[in-house]
Amino acid sequence: MLCLKVPSQPSWIEAARADLDRVLLDHAHCEKKAAVNAMALVSRYPGCEMLVREMIALATEEMEHFGMVYSLLRERGVDLERDPGDPYVQALHREVHQNEPQRMMDLLLVAALVEARSCERFSVLSKHVPDESLREFYRSLLASEAGHYRTFYDIACEYYPERDVRARLDALAAREAEIVLALASAPTMHG
Amino acid sequence: MLCLKVPSQPSWIEAARADLDRVLLDHAHCEKKAAVNAMALVSRYPGCEMLVREMIALATEEMEHFGMVYSLLRERGVDLERDPGDPYVQALHREVHQNEPQRMMDLLLVAALVEARSCERFSVLSKHVPDESLREFYRSLLASEAGHYRTFYDIACEYYPERDVRARLDALAAREAEIVLALASAPTMHG
Repeated sequence: MLCLKVPSQPSWIEAARADLDRVLLDHAHCEKKAAVNAMALVSRYPGCEMLVREMIALATEEMEHFGMVYSLLRERGVDLERDPGDPYVQALHREVHQNEPQRMMDLLLVAALVEARSCERFSVLSKHVPDESLREFYRSLLASEAGHYRTFYDIACEYYPERDVRARLDALAAREAEIVLALASAPTMHG
Repeated sequence: MLCLKVPSQPSWIEAARADLDRVLLDHAHCEKKAAVNAMALVSRYPGCEMLVREMIALATEEMEHFGMVYSLLRERGVDLERDPGDPYVQALHREVHQNEPQRMMDLLLVAALVEARSCERFSVLSKHVPDESLREFYRSLLASEAGHYRTFYDIACEYYPERDVRARLDALAAREAEIVLALASAPTMHG
């Protein structure tokens, strides 16, 4: 699916099913951070028109999703909590080159991979959670998050040769697989 | 107007009229930072439901405004640039208490004052810029930004006694007036 090299493991699916409140809590933080990350890319690359336009659209959509997940949390009687951070995203970010022009491509492709993995997990959740309304909710998010993966890939191809983008995505996807397999299966979006 | 103690000076109006591209450029950054600031308040105070809900709505609206200002810039052939920072907001933030519970009230009231000043400046611009379509644009933003001032004030009153909120807003507004008068009149939203 998408560019990912490994599917989510059964142990993650079990961990997620066992604590859906915690998955939703982490999911809320992911949507918020996706919006903030989009604005950080705009701040860093203000002269790249396609990037700026796509990031404004993406941030608006992520903010809307954040509102949806937050409402769901409150309906379930769960309070939002401080974000404890996301070891998966932190590990991926350590792969990002520090210098341009490589840095921008890496930031875009890491964002693409995070969207791809989130999308894959929505797909898993839409099949395996017991509650039908929650399955429907994850199905509704699937399509737009798959679009976000593609958006980041397309932006990279706007500013770099596609062959280079594909090669780097392949290398980062291999690293992503190692990272996701090494994580203890926790009830979080990328755990 | 609103809680402000001094109106914008004629020297600012002249500076803004003389370089509207720069005013719009700074305005784009202001909308982006307003959205990011709203998400920062959510991260800091995740358990405050009214705050979280209002900040999600506000960030979505600011993102929409950012898109509008960005389109206007591109129509005028202006590229977005790196944000050089906002000395006005930086000076106001130096008034914020470092410790809770005072800190949250201060952050909300500083945000309220920034919205109030932006709103006052939209009002001035909607009367003084030469281009009618731009005057109309500023008029369209006026109402929503006035609403934002009120939103931050109302959130503060949800979590603190209104008498305390009023007293602190009065003190911060006095400081805001000193700051805005001390700034060299620059073609920026708060210059």
